[in-house]
Amino acid sequence: MSIITLITDFGDRDGYAGVMKGVMLGISPEARFVDISHQIDPQDLVQAAFLIQSSYRYFPSKTVHMVIVDPGVGTGRAVLAFSAAGHYFIGPDNGVLQLVARSEDISWLIAVDNPDLFLHPISDTFHGRDIFAPVAAHLLNGMTPEKLGSLMDPNRMVALHYVDPQMDENEDLMGTIIDIDRFGNLITDLDASWFVSKQHLMSVQQFNKEIIMAVGNIRIKGLAATFMDRRVGDFVAYIGSRNYLEIAVTQGNASKRLNVTKGAQVRVTLPVKQF
Amino acid sequence: MSIITLITDFGDRDGYAGVMKGVMLGISPEARFVDISHQIDPQDLVQAAFLIQSSYRYFPSKTVHMVIVDPGVGTGRAVLAFSAAGHYFIGPDNGVLQLVARSEDISWLIAVDNPDLFLHPISDTFHGRDIFAPVAAHLLNGMTPEKLGSLMDPNRMVALHYVDPQMDENEDLMGTIIDIDRFGNLITDLDASWFVSKQHLMSVQQFNKEIIMAVGNIRIKGLAATFMDRRVGDFVAYIGSRNYLEIAVTQGNASKRLNVTKGAQVRVTLPVKQF
Amino acid sequence: MSIITLITDFGDRDGYAGVMKGVMLGISPEARFVDISHQIDPQDLVQAAFLIQSSYRYFPSKTVHMVIVDPGVGTGRAVLAFSAAGHYFIGPDNGVLQLVARSEDISWLIAVDNPDLFLHPISDTFHGRDIFAPVAAHLLNGMTPEKLGSLMDPNRMVALHYVDPQMDENEDLMGTIIDIDRFGNLITDLDASWFVSKQHLMSVQQFNKEIIMAVGNIRIKGLAATFMDRRVGDFVAYIGSRNYLEIAVTQGNASKRLNVTKGAQVRVTLPVKQF
Repeated sequence: MSIITLITDFGDRDGYAGVMKGVMLGISPEARFVDISHQIDPQDLVQAAFLIQSSYRYFPSKTVHMVIVDPGVGTGRAVLAFSAAGHYFIGPDNGVLQLVARSEDISWLIAVDNPDLFLHPISDTFHGRDIFAPVAAHLLNGMTPEKLGSLMDPNRMVALHYVDPQMDENEDLMGTIIDIDRFGNLITDLDASWFVSKQHLMSVQQFNKEIIMAVGNIRIKGLAATFMDRRVGDFVAYIGSRNYLEIAVTQGNASKRLNVTKGAQVRVTLPVKQF
Repeated sequence: MSIITLITDFGDRDGYAGVMKGVMLGISPEARFVDISHQIDPQDLVQAAFLIQSSYRYFPSKTVHMVIVDPGVGTGRAVLAFSAAGHYFIGPDNGVLQLVARSEDISWLIAVDNPDLFLHPISDTFHGRDIFAPVAAHLLNGMTPEKLGSLMDPNRMVALHYVDPQMDENEDLMGTIIDIDRFGNLITDLDASWFVSKQHLMSVQQFNKEIIMAVGNIRIKGLAATFMDRRVGDFVAYIGSRNYLEIAVTQGNASKRLNVTKGAQVRVTLPVKQF
Repeated sequence: MSIITLITDFGDRDGYAGVMKGVMLGISPEARFVDISHQIDPQDLVQAAFLIQSSYRYFPSKTVHMVIVDPGVGTGRAVLAFSAAGHYFIGPDNGVLQLVARSEDISWLIAVDNPDLFLHPISDTFHGRDIFAPVAAHLLNGMTPEKLGSLMDPNRMVALHYVDPQMDENEDLMGTIIDIDRFGNLITDLDASWFVSKQHLMSVQQFNKEIIMAVGNIRIKGLAATFMDRRVGDFVAYIGSRNYLEIAVTQGNASKRLNVTKGAQVRVTLPVKQF
């Protein structure tokens, strides 16, 4: 199989992704593309970082994942390619691949700098076409990593401008809304595993009934299995399909109802211990 | 050939369709995808039902058509798979596949409930990824229907919340605008065959010249062959490419001009008999 | 390889492009599609003409490029197919393919009129499905041009309604904004080669530093290599990836800042000769 996935902020009107596919097909004629999203909000590295982190594992191994959100295009920022969890990843060295890199063991990491692979002249504004696309296609063709560039220490990757969830002085957990989906559902960075780790405090049913989520000017009591567990128009908190806490309005738009945008804080208050 | 088409209300920014494709490629590596639309208005079953009904016949036989507009995800609603007209269809049991099902002979209908096929744990909010995608891929691989679940009586499918066109007391035909396309053209549920069935009343030319369509606050006299048959800026009624009556403004936007949205009524008044 | 690219103004919500792909797969089962854009502004022939002209060369030779922006659908306008630069092109005879046709030697040009190739009955509003799609698929299958229709003189192609850049009385170059991309960058019709042809006037560095671009109510001094060469929020002029002059705001939206839309004029004033 020869699958290349794409996550970019290029949108779908200007032909940028199509041209990249043309370049890749010229090098790797069997390449098959899956567009994950070209609608990342312009230059939102955090949104893209969470999207690839929650998506890649659903693809067959050896898939090449391109993530091109690249406000630093044309500057000296490095181009990264690495292998982790049996998949390949390629993107700019600006943190957009950090969440994948830190959650998996990296087999190898290359700072890509072999100009023989690039399209010349290299446009200073579209490395997607002239650098990332040909490199991805060669990677798909089985080129050995050493031919892409020089080995690099994963600890030297540029960090994502993002703060992990924090515990405050009251032992409330503070998280961030990192995405708002098409339905207006608020996607947080609070991982399901954190909730599971706290459920030993009492019975799971009681835990899920008494935990409290606060966002904007509302408080939601209880963690539901799905938004259909609440009446139409009610707010509901649940673990979403990406495995993070989400806040929705059943058959409604939570973002509009709360007038909340990306970056807003979410506070989770644990139930009082009952024993 | 191994074609899977997709109609969803997932949009194109959140990666939901891409992840489904990853799951399907893992099971059916030769699968090829055609996105019909991911821009169904959230939870609009009628819009999706008409879109699949007017689209599927243009694909090669044995194509698997997935239609996932699923406000009831995570509740007990059934998952349907059936074969009709040499194609395969899969979707939730909420009426979204009803227009296809009633217009074709169904070879077999299965209520899909074989958990061995699903991705576990099953997310309560994303059956597209965990149930529909793997089932579609297995169907494409040639799995026999009996392995998907239990045979079901087509008469027990959940009905679409939609009223067919009606004749009123004046023998006017009353229909509904069920979609508005990108150009602002109004797509009704009034089938071309009804018009043809009435054309024996007089000559076709005279019929097409004298029939009257009313929508919003305007009346349109005459059925044109195409919107180019009227001057720029004029309203025009014609049988559209889906084979339903459409109302447009030549090189303009009928929806904006009339301030009409989906669900609005359209009245058709037949010419007076001339004999 | 069997690649078909698509540029249309059909949007992505109504299923028009998907249905065309179904038709093509029925005729050419190995066809592989690359969507360049379905978001051409309705009926904007100039935008589409520039997009295909700057995109096609990035695809492998023998690719079939479909460009369907077709305000005259259902009238008598001709359907064109031609070969140039080792690629195939198909579209309506309304100028949308003119920029490609005049920049390359045309091997053959056919006015497509073989009804045996079309889907019948032909919808008067959707030739994309009933005429362009089957013809493109037959072309991909290697059908000889003569079977598509009659040879035509390229000089008889309908001209695009568009005026090339002009020199005014002060020897300033006047161009037009022909597209605005997702980021709000303004794409002009002023070709990089014109700038290169003038750089002999002085040193390239000095030329790039002193040249002046005026659009809306601002003047930009100097041609940058990329938008990252200016501070965040500053206006910047540079040769974009399509090889035309572009005007942007670094990490901002030039179109909104200037309140400028497609069709606006751009004036370029050369540096005064220094010798």
